[in-house]
Amino acid sequence: MKLKFDYNNMMDCAIGAHGIKKSEIDGAMTAHQSAFTEVIANSGKGWQEWTETPMISDATVDELCAFGKSIRDKATSFVVLGIGGSALGPICVFNALLHLHHNELPKEMRKAPKIYVEDNVDPERMASLLDVIDIKTSYFNVITKSGETSETLSQFIILYNMLKKALGETAAKEHIFVTTTDGKGSLYNVAKKEGFKIFGIPSGVGGRFSVLSNVGLVPFAVMGLDIKSMLAGARAMRKACENKDVYKNPALMTAFLQVKSMQAGKNISVMMPYADGLRTMADFYCQIWAESLGKAVDKAGKTVNYGQTPAKSLGVTDQHSQVQLYTEGPYDKVVTFIGVEQYGATVDIPNDSADVGDFLKGHTLNELITAERKSTEFALTKAGRSNFTILLPEVNAETVGELLMYFMYQTAFAGAYLNIDTFNQPGVEEGKKATFAMIGRKGYEEKLKELNSAVKKDEYIIC
Amino acid sequence: MKLKFDYNNMMDCAIGAHGIKKSEIDGAMTAHQSAFTEVIANSGKGWQEWTETPMISDATVDELCAFGKSIRDKATSFVVLGIGGSALGPICVFNALLHLHHNELPKEMRKAPKIYVEDNVDPERMASLLDVIDIKTSYFNVITKSGETSETLSQFIILYNMLKKALGETAAKEHIFVTTTDGKGSLYNVAKKEGFKIFGIPSGVGGRFSVLSNVGLVPFAVMGLDIKSMLAGARAMRKACENKDVYKNPALMTAFLQVKSMQAGKNISVMMPYADGLRTMADFYCQIWAESLGKAVDKAGKTVNYGQTPAKSLGVTDQHSQVQLYTEGPYDKVVTFIGVEQYGATVDIPNDSADVGDFLKGHTLNELITAERKSTEFALTKAGRSNFTILLPEVNAETVGELLMYFMYQTAFAGAYLNIDTFNQPGVEEGKKATFAMIGRKGYEEKLKELNSAVKKDEYIIC
Repeated sequence: MKLKFDYNNMMDCAIGAHGIKKSEIDGAMTAHQSAFTEVIANSGKGWQEWTETPMISDATVDELCAFGKSIRDKATSFVVLGIGGSALGPICVFNALLHLHHNELPKEMRKAPKIYVEDNVDPERMASLLDVIDIKTSYFNVITKSGETSETLSQFIILYNMLKKALGETAAKEHIFVTTTDGKGSLYNVAKKEGFKIFGIPSGVGGRFSVLSNVGLVPFAVMGLDIKSMLAGARAMRKACENKDVYKNPALMTAFLQVKSMQAGKNISVMMPYADGLRTMADFYCQIWAESLGKAVDKAGKTVNYGQTPAKSLGVTDQHSQVQLYTEGPYDKVVTFIGVEQYGATVDIPNDSADVGDFLKGHTLNELITAERKSTEFALTKAGRSNFTILLPEVNAETVGELLMYFMYQTAFAGAYLNIDTFNQPGVEEGKKATFAMIGRKGYEEKLKELNSAVKKDEYIIC
Repeated sequence: MKLKFDYNNMMDCAIGAHGIKKSEIDGAMTAHQSAFTEVIANSGKGWQEWTETPMISDATVDELCAFGKSIRDKATSFVVLGIGGSALGPICVFNALLHLHHNELPKEMRKAPKIYVEDNVDPERMASLLDVIDIKTSYFNVITKSGETSETLSQFIILYNMLKKALGETAAKEHIFVTTTDGKGSLYNVAKKEGFKIFGIPSGVGGRFSVLSNVGLVPFAVMGLDIKSMLAGARAMRKACENKDVYKNPALMTAFLQVKSMQAGKNISVMMPYADGLRTMADFYCQIWAESLGKAVDKAGKTVNYGQTPAKSLGVTDQHSQVQLYTEGPYDKVVTFIGVEQYGATVDIPNDSADVGDFLKGHTLNELITAERKSTEFALTKAGRSNFTILLPEVNAETVGELLMYFMYQTAFAGAYLNIDTFNQPGVEEGKKATFAMIGRKGYEEKLKELNSAVKKDEYIIC
């Protein structure tokens, strides 16, 4: 394991009354054991097939990479159509491992097509996309676990139709490949019928745990990323998370600390990477943490309304936006810093003659961002605020693989501590049904009546 | 006023026990009066000079626009150097009013330089920027209210040095213009000495309330935005917010509802625009809300640790990430939806022959995103969750001006209800001092000792 987890500032010895006591960790050995066993004993079973995603063979990876290269060689743009778990994995990995201005680089520098992950149905966004891609030389990866996602199917219908008009039916089919549950669902069926290439998602891998399945790997292959190192990192983290000693298992320990904090009223979890390349890693975390742990009932059917609300922040940027609140506001949050020891570039602040900021000259931006991270950690700790730090030696395929796998294990352990179903999402059904009703889908007539019966009072509208 | 504010779903008649009663609004008339008076009576005074920012003359705007055009005509790239309040205004306005892929458009389509707002000191980000801009034809607007911001000064030193090497000293000066407090601060002094063009910020306009001062207007002028309409929108909102009837004043009413909710344990404020163009409007809100209201003490010096943590979300995208939690998790948040009636494009979902998603065909993405917004509102309301909706007829300079001014008034009123100092940020000082100490600035030797005395226990580190 390359990552380092420092939770000193979660403890009472560092932050005082709002901290956790060692005796609380030691006193919960039964809970640790039980959470550990629930996750590890069910590894690879039911909805826990995600634990197996990094275990694929090198030969399978080679095949994926060969396919990826075949697309990379001919595509000017590569577009992922997906939302939620089908988009956040690709987004955060591209953000971390591609150049921060990938699409603006000249072709010889970027060595891969322009990349777009379209995870919304804003019509202006679709129109904007069509302004910048040449559809005739663009390739589309349609990703939905269920094969039924309205947003993704809409995008698919629009773009497939355009492709057929631009290229003719036969050639159009070559520009689309789909990633969906093998053998099941509307997208699978249409792909079979139309003859699109299909990449399967194992049935026990849920959307938000799917980044290391074909959901992520196919896009990574197209963009030429180092999948083998990423999976090696994920396997190293899996091993660390299979250690039953809570003091040696980063995901088990930090899951416990978060759950304990949540139960003590800290209902907010801030994820604050100090690197632009890890900005959207916070979005990945926000999804997996919110959707997995935000649950109305526990496994016994008892109403619990659990859930810690994740909030994303970016260091140092949000020191000028959120840190005032973190330092002086309610004691209602845990801040997770993600630090980077070695950035991908070094930038000197030169000894320029301009008569300003002399104390900065001769240093590097690397020193400045690191000093600011440590200073913010110091200030929060001094103010008695719970925080812990995940440290990456550098941002690369291997450490990103570790980090992703860590988030998955941490979430699974947290759900186990809470005795909830980590892997379902019943709370989104009502909204989906209401959308079907509004859009006039057959079978939702009653829901439409219910929707129309909601009356708004004019007195509560200001215009 | 073009915006519409619908707070039906904050009320008990819509969401039941977790809602606010009309009698609570009516019973707080003294509080409304007092909050209103504090803000309005001090309009233009002390730290409330921001109320005057939209009141500048057309002639002043014309001058700004002429300057902007002179830069626009010769710049290939335009770079804003700033952080926090000096960056978030430009970022959110560009996001709303420029093409979503502005930098990727061919020059004849974008009609303005490529735009970068550099609000971090990640060395990789600086290196990436330098990979995509031609420094010889790039122009830099250095923005800091205090003129002392370490991050911005570092960027300035680096880039000015590069400009001088590339262009020579005289020509380099033409590529930099600064926006800072008139007559004060390190940046002002060096600008005078070097002969950079200076745009002033009135001393009573704080960073997070400065978007409609030169902090925003200069960048908007360079990019050719419609400043007059934006200021007209801001003035219309100012007028609406000067209405002393809480039932007719959108900022006063929603400030009260948020404060009341916060006092009832709803310590999270989610901002969820349903438009990619408004995505970073949520960041603007997150700063102004967090930094203004996150305060340890009230005006009487009493320890209060107030503050509602803002969380940003994007519709429909985050329905697949956060809405499970919003629906089923704790009753600890207020969700603000921002809806758009008329999007800037219409995209049909065609009656394609592909055998999938038939219920979507013949509709538009516009209908889908609107149905999803209303459905999410419906589902949250049905689950008893506090939410309200801000509706924009469309996203344009005028409505963006209204929205920005609304956020500023809402925040000011909320601070007045809470009896705190809305305009300071004492909580960030400790971190700044620690950074100075670590970077070796003179006078911070004691702080360095304090920093070095913090001991980490190895037993709380996992690696």
